[in-house]
Amino acid sequence: MTTTKDFALFGAPPAFDKPIPIGQLYFPSAQRYEAAFRGIFERQYYTEYGPLNRQLEQNLQQFLGVKHAICVANETVALMMVANAMELTGKVILPAFNHIAAVQSLSWAGLEPVFCDVDPATHQIDIDQVSKLIDQDVSAILGVNLWGGVCDVKALAKLAKDSGVQLYFDSAHAFGCAVDGVRIGNFGRAEVLSFHQSNILNATEGGCICTNDDELAAKLRVMRSSAGAGSVPATVNKTVNGRMSEAQSAIALMGLEDFSANQRNNEILFELYKAQLAKISGLRLFKPKGVSFSNYQNVVCQISEAEFGLSRDRLIALLKAENVDARPCFHLGVHRDIPHSQHQLPETDSLSTSCIQLPIGALVSAQSVLKICDILARAHQASTTINARSSQDSIGVR
Amino acid sequence: MTTTKDFALFGAPPAFDKPIPIGQLYFPSAQRYEAAFRGIFERQYYTEYGPLNRQLEQNLQQFLGVKHAICVANETVALMMVANAMELTGKVILPAFNHIAAVQSLSWAGLEPVFCDVDPATHQIDIDQVSKLIDQDVSAILGVNLWGGVCDVKALAKLAKDSGVQLYFDSAHAFGCAVDGVRIGNFGRAEVLSFHQSNILNATEGGCICTNDDELAAKLRVMRSSAGAGSVPATVNKTVNGRMSEAQSAIALMGLEDFSANQRNNEILFELYKAQLAKISGLRLFKPKGVSFSNYQNVVCQISEAEFGLSRDRLIALLKAENVDARPCFHLGVHRDIPHSQHQLPETDSLSTSCIQLPIGALVSAQSVLKICDILARAHQASTTINARSSQDSIGVR
Repeated sequence: MTTTKDFALFGAPPAFDKPIPIGQLYFPSAQRYEAAFRGIFERQYYTEYGPLNRQLEQNLQQFLGVKHAICVANETVALMMVANAMELTGKVILPAFNHIAAVQSLSWAGLEPVFCDVDPATHQIDIDQVSKLIDQDVSAILGVNLWGGVCDVKALAKLAKDSGVQLYFDSAHAFGCAVDGVRIGNFGRAEVLSFHQSNILNATEGGCICTNDDELAAKLRVMRSSAGAGSVPATVNKTVNGRMSEAQSAIALMGLEDFSANQRNNEILFELYKAQLAKISGLRLFKPKGVSFSNYQNVVCQISEAEFGLSRDRLIALLKAENVDARPCFHLGVHRDIPHSQHQLPETDSLSTSCIQLPIGALVSAQSVLKICDILARAHQASTTINARSSQDSIGVR
Repeated sequence: MTTTKDFALFGAPPAFDKPIPIGQLYFPSAQRYEAAFRGIFERQYYTEYGPLNRQLEQNLQQFLGVKHAICVANETVALMMVANAMELTGKVILPAFNHIAAVQSLSWAGLEPVFCDVDPATHQIDIDQVSKLIDQDVSAILGVNLWGGVCDVKALAKLAKDSGVQLYFDSAHAFGCAVDGVRIGNFGRAEVLSFHQSNILNATEGGCICTNDDELAAKLRVMRSSAGAGSVPATVNKTVNGRMSEAQSAIALMGLEDFSANQRNNEILFELYKAQLAKISGLRLFKPKGVSFSNYQNVVCQISEAEFGLSRDRLIALLKAENVDARPCFHLGVHRDIPHSQHQLPETDSLSTSCIQLPIGALVSAQSVLKICDILARAHQASTTINARSSQDSIGVR
């Protein structure tokens, strides 16, 4: 029988010698990177739409089946650029269950966020609620595709069209995912992808704007560099420094070559989690919905404290002690980060306080997943004694 | 005697086999970079205030003698962050004879630029005019330090203090420069440096905010990453993705080690230009003023068409044909890029249409400088025939 003595939180040696990270953290070998970097040094061309950047954009366009893939220094800048290039005004509706960069991009673009709640079954934007929030001050909907799943992109497109507002997407988590065989990058007027290292395709930092709209693409290419650039003339009212370096492009090019292998690795680990977690009551694994193909880049689990026996925060403390980098999803819904927010978003609040992210990706082995699931099973079994001992030591208490 | 036949513009072989770039373009050897990069791969930590980024900030603080050096993805983002963290409102006065990033940073921060003219003798901000432009809507002066020289930072500080407005600097061109032995980075409430590859210290792309103000620094450290960071708590109303990667930091760390050698290289080339150009009438070399130490990172020359014999644009066409990457300074003063600008800035207009930048930096040899100056001398001698032939061919005509 498991006792508290078996957990690192109470003095046992940790299950892992070094931290098992959340993921994705895929990087090519140092040897491959050095070969690419030697080319950059030989050409003496380091930034601003260089040859590797051009190649990356071409390869992305082909891979995604999209007309324009415009690579940018990071996703926040990309979202700012799109909001400006689409000439948005007033308010923009977006889900609060998301990372804060999307809200911040609106703020820098002089726009006001209107937060909507999410569907607890899918974690994605609640379209009925979006429809109720549209008024004459709303110029756009910023859809979000979370955790390798997607929202109902077609219903959202219909709603936007019928309401006369624009639609674009923050698809940070959705690189490579497809809806009925069409890759993410092709929906709304534009979609923004993140190439942060926590995503399946990374450029260390980086982002990409995808669009099939020639006029918008021309504007974005001019906006990307302070001094303007782009072969198609376009008039913009602002530029920014959104240039992606050759070093960033080199990493992303190799990651794109290895996308299939990385996706497959994620899928195997995800299936392992699914099989193991199904045996533990009180843990509900998020399963990507709405996609014909997923990148399986995130493992997100909702905890029912009543069934599992431990609170989310206490479980995180327990896992961290074992060197498992478990985390809340987005700290709190971003509506909580906005001073004096009047938004009431019960589903977002509930998911924000009951979900954890677990490790998956390039630095996580199948054996590690089994070990993590074993800790979870034992934590469930010993939950009563863990709670008693933790309360005594004030562990996992906010 | 020189004839038009001696120039590549009219069919002669170009003076240089491959383009001689404007500069600075200093990069460490591929071997040194690879050694640094191996460390990054071993640590598996690639971005967001990593060990190389921390080391760079420490080394910069020591080198500049400043309390806080906060490294950021690029200078535009840095300027946006400072404007927001200083809580600026309404209007900001800045010189129009500058790159467009400074104006764009104001635009993204929701501020209105008020352009002032420059002193034609120094190319720096005209402080008397700044004083006349201050009204109740102006919240700050954004001083600019150009071409390895500086404006009168002390007079500007006194004016700002007396007028109750804030003062900060765009010191993109002034890394390493000093005023009475005090390094640039210590003036105003904050100074922003650019680590773009065209500056003496580069991180490919990159920027740095310097300040001696603890409260401002704490805010900036939180703003730099979307999710917030920084050990000192600070309340901010916005964040952005301004993270500098470890790859960027590695390049800048090596550039900082080699700063003295690069400064010395620039100074030697600058002195060569000075000696050679003094022999040619109609060319006035910009000499860094107001500094006790200059990085000599830019060679800027004002052309008197009447004395030299050729217009600025015709001379640029002639040099480009020889594979010398000569350029106008800032295309036009940035006040010309703002639609319906009412600003009348005669000195900025005059410098914008009569100045050229010439090559200097890591990829330029003393021999190349002599050769460039020789082309200039011959162009002056043959100006009459060049003009006759060019008019015929519509060369250098806007």
